Amino acid sequence: MRRITATLLVTLLPYPALAQKSTVSQPWPPAAPQQAVPSPRPTPVPPAQVAQEVRDYRLNNEDRIVRELGELLSIPNIASDTENIQKNAGKLREMLEARGIETHLLPIQGRGPVIFGKLTQREATRTVIFYAHYDGQPVDPAAWTDGKPFEPALRTNSIEAGGKRIPFPQPQPGERAEYQDDWRIYARSASDDKSPIVMLLAAMDALRAKKIPIAVNVKVILDGEEEAGSPNLERVVELNKNLFTGDVLITCDGPVHQSGKPLVFFGNRGVEDVQIAVYGPIRALHSGHYGNWAPNPAFWLSRLLASMKDETGRVLIEGFYDDVTPLTDREKKAVEEMPQNDAELMRELEFAKPEGGGKKLAELINLPSLNIRGLRSAYVGEQSQNVVPEKAEASLDLRLVKNIDPQKQFERLVGHIRKQGFYVVDREPTREERLKYPHIAKVTYSGGYPAIRTSMDLPVSRKVVEVVEGAAGETVKAPTLGGSVPMYIFERLGLPVIGVPIVNYDNHQHSSDENVRLGHLWRGIEVYAALLADLTW
Amino acid sequence: MRRITATLLVTLLPYPALAQKSTVSQPWPPAAPQQAVPSPRPTPVPPAQVAQEVRDYRLNNEDRIVRELGELLSIPNIASDTENIQKNAGKLREMLEARGIETHLLPIQGRGPVIFGKLTQREATRTVIFYAHYDGQPVDPAAWTDGKPFEPALRTNSIEAGGKRIPFPQPQPGERAEYQDDWRIYARSASDDKSPIVMLLAAMDALRAKKIPIAVNVKVILDGEEEAGSPNLERVVELNKNLFTGDVLITCDGPVHQSGKPLVFFGNRGVEDVQIAVYGPIRALHSGHYGNWAPNPAFWLSRLLASMKDETGRVLIEGFYDDVTPLTDREKKAVEEMPQNDAELMRELEFAKPEGGGKKLAELINLPSLNIRGLRSAYVGEQSQNVVPEKAEASLDLRLVKNIDPQKQFERLVGHIRKQGFYVVDREPTREERLKYPHIAKVTYSGGYPAIRTSMDLPVSRKVVEVVEGAAGETVKAPTLGGSVPMYIFERLGLPVIGVPIVNYDNHQHSSDENVRLGHLWRGIEVYAALLADLTW
Repeated sequence: MRRITATLLVTLLPYPALAQKSTVSQPWPPAAPQQAVPSPRPTPVPPAQVAQEVRDYRLNNEDRIVRELGELLSIPNIASDTENIQKNAGKLREMLEARGIETHLLPIQGRGPVIFGKLTQREATRTVIFYAHYDGQPVDPAAWTDGKPFEPALRTNSIEAGGKRIPFPQPQPGERAEYQDDWRIYARSASDDKSPIVMLLAAMDALRAKKIPIAVNVKVILDGEEEAGSPNLERVVELNKNLFTGDVLITCDGPVHQSGKPLVFFGNRGVEDVQIAVYGPIRALHSGHYGNWAPNPAFWLSRLLASMKDETGRVLIEGFYDDVTPLTDREKKAVEEMPQNDAELMRELEFAKPEGGGKKLAELINLPSLNIRGLRSAYVGEQSQNVVPEKAEASLDLRLVKNIDPQKQFERLVGHIRKQGFYVVDREPTREERLKYPHIAKVTYSGGYPAIRTSMDLPVSRKVVEVVEGAAGETVKAPTLGGSVPMYIFERLGLPVIGVPIVNYDNHQHSSDENVRLGHLWRGIEVYAALLADLTW
Repeated sequence: MRRITATLLVTLLPYPALAQKSTVSQPWPPAAPQQAVPSPRPTPVPPAQVAQEVRDYRLNNEDRIVRELGELLSIPNIASDTENIQKNAGKLREMLEARGIETHLLPIQGRGPVIFGKLTQREATRTVIFYAHYDGQPVDPAAWTDGKPFEPALRTNSIEAGGKRIPFPQPQPGERAEYQDDWRIYARSASDDKSPIVMLLAAMDALRAKKIPIAVNVKVILDGEEEAGSPNLERVVELNKNLFTGDVLITCDGPVHQSGKPLVFFGNRGVEDVQIAVYGPIRALHSGHYGNWAPNPAFWLSRLLASMKDETGRVLIEGFYDDVTPLTDREKKAVEEMPQNDAELMRELEFAKPEGGGKKLAELINLPSLNIRGLRSAYVGEQSQNVVPEKAEASLDLRLVKNIDPQKQFERLVGHIRKQGFYVVDREPTREERLKYPHIAKVTYSGGYPAIRTSMDLPVSRKVVEVVEGAAGETVKAPTLGGSVPMYIFERLGLPVIGVPIVNYDNHQHSSDENVRLGHLWRGIEVYAALLADLTW
């Protein structure tokens, strides 16, 4: 152990100086990186030992890690909030450069840039690209317990488990604050997806402090529009294709398995967001004077939505499942081996019967889905008005699996809506159309991209599992993550894409009261450190 | 004509002094009114002549009338806004007392009082009670074109017809402002129901100015909770039953017929508001990770709502139409004689097919209805989040016709919901219930009251029609108004209830951009003046 440490002292030299700021006038595209001079590879430190040393570092640096995360979470990060999303990018650039990562902001008009970072190791033969995103889902502050999604709050546990809000520790210089694993930080993007960025950087800090060499060239891609469907990422990647060469892409997005075990996944579902509006009279009408004569768009929307799925949750749209590529035997086996915790999960989520006709969650995620993510027509509750509404709206998301084309799936949906007797438009209907067609639906989609699935049989696939299990113990292997990340962009570049998420599953991702559990963060640092130190194959 | 005016000078004497303020310490209940001393009745002035003289008065006093209305509309009047609703009551008391009306505020804890006013005529043998309400529907300022529902705005026409906003005229003393009949005042309650109050008082002013005697004892009831379902009116009326004696109750609420013709109606539908919530997982879940496994409450709500009506709009709830009392032959004839303007109305409201299986609007209003007045689940449009929502809500209103009991109709609805497989609760479901029942609906109702229908054959019914037609020309007679007013309270006291509305039908009542057309106001003053001067039978 001592001998290894001594050896590592030497290998530390290739690290670029810390906090080396790039100047604004830096030329772009940058000059090709210096050719790494081959040098003898250090004996790799086994993952379990990396994890242990990193843990020791972390125990003495929790304050610093939490403070860095807290500062990042304090910057509002909705993709469409141009000013703030740029502030996030500026902050992240500083954070990356502080670790000696050569950082470039690849600009997108009116949105946050794609942040690209590169850290070359003289002795490395493999290049590992880490992907995360720094934007978050839209927020409705009124729906948050603390009312302020961008003022990180510390709690002694999850709100559901009665976690009390406590101040962030303010240790005196030289003092170490006491953090508990069950504590949680509440803020938008606490889990999705700022924590993984901070943990990856903390992993680098820990390795450096413990003098464990990074065994691979590291590239980092931080997307500023993931929650908005990454509409520009593909173009930016195309324009800068030469930057994105590598041997594997590790995506840091998503939660670990509900069992609490670490997770490695080999694909993710694609997604497209669909908005549907159904029309009634041109203006809301008094429901007494017009109440069983003027057509009610909320009824017609209800009928339309009800027609889309049967009571088991099976989608009734023609052809919806036609293009599904069956799982391979190995993938089926992986699904079978995943922990059986659906019943526990139902108890925790307090519902009595899942959709899926008896299939378990892990299986269902390998099928396409159709979800109503929102409904709106006039007002409910205290704000109710006695009207026949002029419009009723639904927001859907369709999840796609390997081989389903987003445009084709959208067309199947539109075909179904037409079959229900609707005249379909992609903009507000005209007066003439309203007077001609009894039922009109405006149907539009955005953010569509396909699913991916990397073979679990690739050497790199096996190696990632080996390193994660070495660092963090028994790991769940999933052919597909239920969520969506635009990894098709990288798959098209020929990169195998593998997911190594770190955050707790009960993180309220995409909803109010998003949070991250500290214990998961700590383990995430160990896992990422082990990948940096050992992902060679 | 001159001779009549001279006679009237004498009959003016019984008017109490103007602007006689009652003191706060006034005893309650008040002493019985002085016995009216019989005096020879003046020759009644025929309705057409009343209308003409009142018009002359109005042409010279439009500024004053519009100003008084504007001041009243400037006071926010949501029933639950305790402070402001009291301000409305104070203002109305001043307005009534300025006309010499003995006014009492019958208090309701935390809400606006029922305002009761009385003006006794020495020579009168009949007592006519006028009913209106001074509260308005809830507002969503963002949905209003001018953004401020309580800052009255003047426009040159309706917004739909391209009406431009113009400043209220500011005539110099002695100058007369020019108002056009097509101009509209936009504000919450501009039509529903503050204008009728101001017009009734303007009618009194006009009669006094023109020295036309009021032929009846007048009582005025102003309700401060009508849009909240008048939950306390019945109790207040019971407690003060002795005040509410009379021979007929004229309700001033509601719009005139869509043809633009004046309207007299002899009943109104009852109403009950129903809130339904359907539950999914205990918290909103990521729609990718849980998206075809966690049950989606928006789908279940859609299914439930879709089950309630067929495509023609017929309600499928068992027994929904069972207790409907058929129309009498006279009522059927009145419905048949109502103007046939459904096709025009559809063109104006821009829809191609009404509900009702071919029945016309005027017929449908004599049937009970079930209307979705609002839907809500998570978010749509820009605010959409990729979640399986935890809850989906609908707000319904059920309109009732003569002989349908609100409680019984509600129970039929609940029975239907149970038949669709839902476990029904009237509060949030417990954890145990959530874990036991696959589908749970919280169903509650409020504001329920029954419909009324006054016989069109009563002498007073015929007389009201005669006076309104005399003053304003051909009038539409409707057995039932589609809207709801809690007139059952007065029907139970043995009062025939007849509706004489004055405002334009396209007033956006209950919705945003509520407005009133000035031409309708002017005619309303004439109609109310004629009723005051001539409603003897």
